[in-house]
Amino acid sequence: MGYNVAVVGATGAVGTQLLQILGERRFPLAGLRLLASPRSAGLEVEMAGRKHTVEAISAEAFDGVQLAFFAASTGVSRDWVPVARQRGAVVIDKSNAFRLDPTVPLVVPEVNAHALSDHHGIIASPNCSTIQLVVVLEVIERISPLRLVVVSTYQSVSGTGRRAMEELRENWQALAAGRSPLASVYPHPIGCNVLPHIDSFERSGYSLEEMKLVNETRKILNRQDLQVIATAVRVPVMIGHAESVYVETDELVPADMLRRQMERKPGIVVEDDPDRARYPLPALAAGQDKVYVGRLRNDLFGRNGLAFWVVADNLRKGAATNAVQIAEELVERDLI
Amino acid sequence: MGYNVAVVGATGAVGTQLLQILGERRFPLAGLRLLASPRSAGLEVEMAGRKHTVEAISAEAFDGVQLAFFAASTGVSRDWVPVARQRGAVVIDKSNAFRLDPTVPLVVPEVNAHALSDHHGIIASPNCSTIQLVVVLEVIERISPLRLVVVSTYQSVSGTGRRAMEELRENWQALAAGRSPLASVYPHPIGCNVLPHIDSFERSGYSLEEMKLVNETRKILNRQDLQVIATAVRVPVMIGHAESVYVETDELVPADMLRRQMERKPGIVVEDDPDRARYPLPALAAGQDKVYVGRLRNDLFGRNGLAFWVVADNLRKGAATNAVQIAEELVERDLI
Repeated sequence: MGYNVAVVGATGAVGTQLLQILGERRFPLAGLRLLASPRSAGLEVEMAGRKHTVEAISAEAFDGVQLAFFAASTGVSRDWVPVARQRGAVVIDKSNAFRLDPTVPLVVPEVNAHALSDHHGIIASPNCSTIQLVVVLEVIERISPLRLVVVSTYQSVSGTGRRAMEELRENWQALAAGRSPLASVYPHPIGCNVLPHIDSFERSGYSLEEMKLVNETRKILNRQDLQVIATAVRVPVMIGHAESVYVETDELVPADMLRRQMERKPGIVVEDDPDRARYPLPALAAGQDKVYVGRLRNDLFGRNGLAFWVVADNLRKGAATNAVQIAEELVERDLI
Repeated sequence: MGYNVAVVGATGAVGTQLLQILGERRFPLAGLRLLASPRSAGLEVEMAGRKHTVEAISAEAFDGVQLAFFAASTGVSRDWVPVARQRGAVVIDKSNAFRLDPTVPLVVPEVNAHALSDHHGIIASPNCSTIQLVVVLEVIERISPLRLVVVSTYQSVSGTGRRAMEELRENWQALAAGRSPLASVYPHPIGCNVLPHIDSFERSGYSLEEMKLVNETRKILNRQDLQVIATAVRVPVMIGHAESVYVETDELVPADMLRRQMERKPGIVVEDDPDRARYPLPALAAGQDKVYVGRLRNDLFGRNGLAFWVVADNLRKGAATNAVQIAEELVERDLI
């Protein structure tokens, strides 16, 4: 009993994690095809102790595939998701290609698994920075409707991909040797710097990454009126995104009450004892599948405001784990 | 024509910058005494090509001193500022000891130089993260009163001092060699991490650094009612603090209009062409004396909101340069 699964982008930063997590969580596989650009074809990738050879992506490669994970670029998804659909696969897409398509559910299982029942063959997994945010926002929204969300991100270089991770490593070597770090993936050296620049910019002055936080949060929480102000910033961290968040709600949500509610949520770990230096950290979240939240406190002025700090592994919960959780929900709900 | 000046904490991260900036800006010196803990006594420090020997701090060391800069810990200022005052020196204090004392002006010269005329022998220079924030907020407040300020900081390790800078350097060496970075100054390794923890925590859940942003901003802008929500975060950057700021004002302040007003302010450099990857960066602000602002944009929802990104060298404009500018104003206004 298992499914024929394809993974597109199997050699990338997220694709590699996806294979590992499918193994860790013992996803029921009948067959596995690893697809990538012709450049990567022929590479061998190990998963759960077995070697798989990467194939160049083609229409025929999707024959017999029941479930296809897309963990490549938006362009690859635009070109190949329709092909995979034609060949009968249900697609879980990690790219930005279909996230705002009204016929495509955009799902974080802890938050809106119910949206899966409407799927028409494509399910989108949100952007990394959105996933960890909505997991926390949903708990607040259930207590009192959100009126305002202000989020500033501290995003690791692994969100950009393998070459950016290599660039940070090279930057560390330069800095350790007293040389100036260089930039090629990023427009400025990242090693001893922070860049308020993720993805390209819209005419409004907001970056696409910032607009993803606005639009995806609205869709997932089913709150098209929600006012989200985002600033997306890259920091010299390898894995793990952090977010400083301030929200206002219709009614006061006391931090203590929220902390207790969050402690009951399976997807959330509350780390909140700052006096003992306990709060979420990218270095500790890396390699984990939960969303870590701490530094919870109300505003001091009676605004019905709450500030908090949320961290997750952007390659795992922010990408691969969320996609596999979607697949598990599809199986459980008999929706493949 | 010059002043007898003492610098307390002359061997520290800020003290060293202070000496350099007094030289760069040709502050009129008649004499210069470098004071530090007995541990540093006897060290030689060069300033403008001349060597000065560091003396252990004592009451007599202030005899004949007209102007004393304190660039040491809050404890040193609490103990020794009253002594310096008794011996007749006017004190510019960089520490937290007197900032909220109602008899002590807290001054950023571009913002509230007028407050100097009230001084009673002690002038406080604000915390680094406050200085760069209020330089921008003042321009907005002049156009329309601020209703809300939400700030998340990205603060460099030099704000902690020399030992933290050494720790980051060691962390880079470890990371470059594939070893785990260690922590001794910070409670967690900083090299590949971000820590939402600067200074100790109050019962409210806010850190002292966050409360400085609240209380000092209120005092400098003379707006005791101003609602400031701050999250202070340490990032693995050597020099230069960045801040992601969202404000709301009584009336709409269009980003374009604000940009033009800021371009006219001598203390501010507007770097705001994100399409060409131009925005303020710690790596570019390091070694400079201005406050850099960019990523200016209005909110998308008609909230009279503005988001922006502000960066400055925390050792220079955030500390030493601001203190020297205060001294220059005192000289110009004949207030020493």
